[in-house]
Amino acid sequence: MTDTGKRVSESLARFVAAARAADLPEAVMHEAKRALLNFLGAAIGGCRDDAIERAAGVLSAFAGPPTATVIGRPQRSDALTAAFLNAASGNVLDFDDTHVPTVIHPTAPVAPPLLALAEQRRVAGRDLLAAFVLGVEVACRLGNAVSPWHYRRGWHITSTCGVFGAATAAGRILGLDAQRMVFALGSAAAQSSGLIETLGFMAKSVGVGQAARGGLLAALLAERGLTGPEQPLEGPRGFLPVMGEAVDAARILDGLGARWEIFANTYKPYPCGVVLNPVIDACLALRAAHAIAPDRIARIAITGHPLLAERTDRPAVASGREAQVSAQHSAAVCFVRGATGIAEYLDAAVRDPAVLALRARVAVERDAAVPVGVATVAVTLTDGTRLEQRVEHARGSLERPLADGEIEAKLRTLAAHGWPGADPEPLIAAVWNLDRSDDAGEIMRLAAPRA
Amino acid sequence: MTDTGKRVSESLARFVAAARAADLPEAVMHEAKRALLNFLGAAIGGCRDDAIERAAGVLSAFAGPPTATVIGRPQRSDALTAAFLNAASGNVLDFDDTHVPTVIHPTAPVAPPLLALAEQRRVAGRDLLAAFVLGVEVACRLGNAVSPWHYRRGWHITSTCGVFGAATAAGRILGLDAQRMVFALGSAAAQSSGLIETLGFMAKSVGVGQAARGGLLAALLAERGLTGPEQPLEGPRGFLPVMGEAVDAARILDGLGARWEIFANTYKPYPCGVVLNPVIDACLALRAAHAIAPDRIARIAITGHPLLAERTDRPAVASGREAQVSAQHSAAVCFVRGATGIAEYLDAAVRDPAVLALRARVAVERDAAVPVGVATVAVTLTDGTRLEQRVEHARGSLERPLADGEIEAKLRTLAAHGWPGADPEPLIAAVWNLDRSDDAGEIMRLAAPRA
Repeated sequence: MTDTGKRVSESLARFVAAARAADLPEAVMHEAKRALLNFLGAAIGGCRDDAIERAAGVLSAFAGPPTATVIGRPQRSDALTAAFLNAASGNVLDFDDTHVPTVIHPTAPVAPPLLALAEQRRVAGRDLLAAFVLGVEVACRLGNAVSPWHYRRGWHITSTCGVFGAATAAGRILGLDAQRMVFALGSAAAQSSGLIETLGFMAKSVGVGQAARGGLLAALLAERGLTGPEQPLEGPRGFLPVMGEAVDAARILDGLGARWEIFANTYKPYPCGVVLNPVIDACLALRAAHAIAPDRIARIAITGHPLLAERTDRPAVASGREAQVSAQHSAAVCFVRGATGIAEYLDAAVRDPAVLALRARVAVERDAAVPVGVATVAVTLTDGTRLEQRVEHARGSLERPLADGEIEAKLRTLAAHGWPGADPEPLIAAVWNLDRSDDAGEIMRLAAPRA
Repeated sequence: MTDTGKRVSESLARFVAAARAADLPEAVMHEAKRALLNFLGAAIGGCRDDAIERAAGVLSAFAGPPTATVIGRPQRSDALTAAFLNAASGNVLDFDDTHVPTVIHPTAPVAPPLLALAEQRRVAGRDLLAAFVLGVEVACRLGNAVSPWHYRRGWHITSTCGVFGAATAAGRILGLDAQRMVFALGSAAAQSSGLIETLGFMAKSVGVGQAARGGLLAALLAERGLTGPEQPLEGPRGFLPVMGEAVDAARILDGLGARWEIFANTYKPYPCGVVLNPVIDACLALRAAHAIAPDRIARIAITGHPLLAERTDRPAVASGREAQVSAQHSAAVCFVRGATGIAEYLDAAVRDPAVLALRARVAVERDAAVPVGVATVAVTLTDGTRLEQRVEHARGSLERPLADGEIEAKLRTLAAHGWPGADPEPLIAAVWNLDRSDDAGEIMRLAAPRA
């Protein structure tokens, strides 16, 4: 490790402790609001998922004073439990944000501890946004440093790196000095966990929930003076050498405070594998342009880089969860329903006879000359007509980010799914107003039904 | 991975779910009682440590209904929080048990979830002992399979493997079937964490506490039907390939139910690095045999395998925690006080002028011809007399285990330290009687002062 690398923990801790909220660029603050809005939508949409119902059912028996909102649900909980459940809800539908270089979903672990703290003590909106941005910075820079080895090895990077983002973001709200911020990193290091093997199962939510809860706990313990090692990240048996390989520590510190990782964050337009986004864009464009009814379609051919086929060539899927990585289901449901929202990836949509019938006529073809992220969809109609659409940059990519209004619309749709009858407009307005609010906790009071 | 390896999770789950308490050999049950007695002593002794005070202070604000005893402390807590604190207390003094092949301290993560459950529902003592033995078996067999790479890489194996032992032991008390036991292993896998970098700092306790809490949570979630992967251990991105290297899965399953890992468990006679045990034995033997007053000692030479010097040649230490791995302090305090208990490894003992004076006359010498675990202490008196003592097998080693009465005595000493005024005799009697008790929860009612 370089000389710089020897001071990673201390440097990150000093940066987070000393940064001034007033110095953060407005564009950074705005991106933070977009991320929070996207997260709140995903969490409200996911808060009734089976995994969340079961976890909430178990945890309620052990929960303390109900000071914190559980997003989308009437029953409040203690701050640690709420952080766990809200992180799990935000991520459970795979509809949250993605930091492109690392595939970290940063907001799910980082935001919930802050939102819970803002219900316990008065936190200005600008301070909450700053803490959030700094926590995302820590999580994503650690992710950059251990990528791509870490994820390939089998680590669920959202959880393993997220706990550090959660700890430092919460530590920032608690006003930890640099030494205690290092302690918080130490207790976070003791809890960094999460395995790719759990993806596709409810157990994934346990790792993501624990990242948020463990980070908040680490910060609270550090506030109380619970000590940790001086180099929890770069020490010889610290996070970087143990959970990384040939780590370039300079990637953690270079440009700190000048370049912001939150600008590499993206928001999903569809609740499915992100590689399917250009396919869906192409299908929806063809359907809209040519008013194609499903029974006029003889064949749909999807062409992309071989990686696309590897991950999504799944002609026969049985559940909504599997359908999220099926090109056949995604294309069929686009043409049958003209949409790919939450409803289109539920088990019922997978069993829809019209979708099943069309799905059988979809093929995925490999072309190594097509760049990753690009897809072409060719539809052959029963009368022989051939229609084709190529998509270079999918909606929601860094090159074609969702507009603010699209993130708002996504929240509205997700609210209708997870919290029927809700009026999400006050929540949306409160998030956009956050940098001018002197009480960030208001967001949480608007994010759930009152019991 | 071999064919056997492909069924590790399922095989372990079936074994734990199907084993009959009545079939466990009496010697296994007896060893389980020794481990619990040793653990309860260590936890009572450690329950007022700064790390525990701080963690308990933080967690009390978030704790739910106080159904569970926090060992040695008057305030009860919810079962998950109690599991965290009791595991941390049992391990914080480094005075708990050690599974020799892996250096796992198995009882700290595995026992607390069971003890907490036994206060919530009626559990027969024999069933608690069986669950404990089975959890220890799971933790230690996983440890065997990933050793020695895992610890050398930087994993705190007590926590990383302990969470699986805690999950399966708790799952056994909950009566999980084999499928749900696999789910419990899955949620445990999502939480497996703990870094060697935190050892020597309070943050270590966060990892150990979380192993117990996380294991209990995993079992409770599985009981509620929260699903996980089919192969959380041996799957391509599961615990064994991610946190191990070139794993021999046969080591997990061979002889399951015929050979018991708890027989490789040892109990520390002294609250310091286990490599110092033969040194301390030799010093205490010399002092007792020759009634040597410290001021008659001109020089103390300790000779052992170079590993002994590498780990313990620390002539100048400033704190009790550092003194736990100092041969100089340990030898000096033996001759000054004739004992090496808790009091001899507190900061006050390190500052004791008599200890400081003698410490300066202690040297550690290397001899590659001496086997690891063997030590010779040579004392040269001021009158030129030379006295020597060699120890082949230290007290507390597998070859020279502590007698039942010695573990009892250890508990009495630790109780006097952590819970002054306590009468530990009813607790000691209840542990020995455990296999005949129809209410294992009684142990916990005897393990703390009543508020």
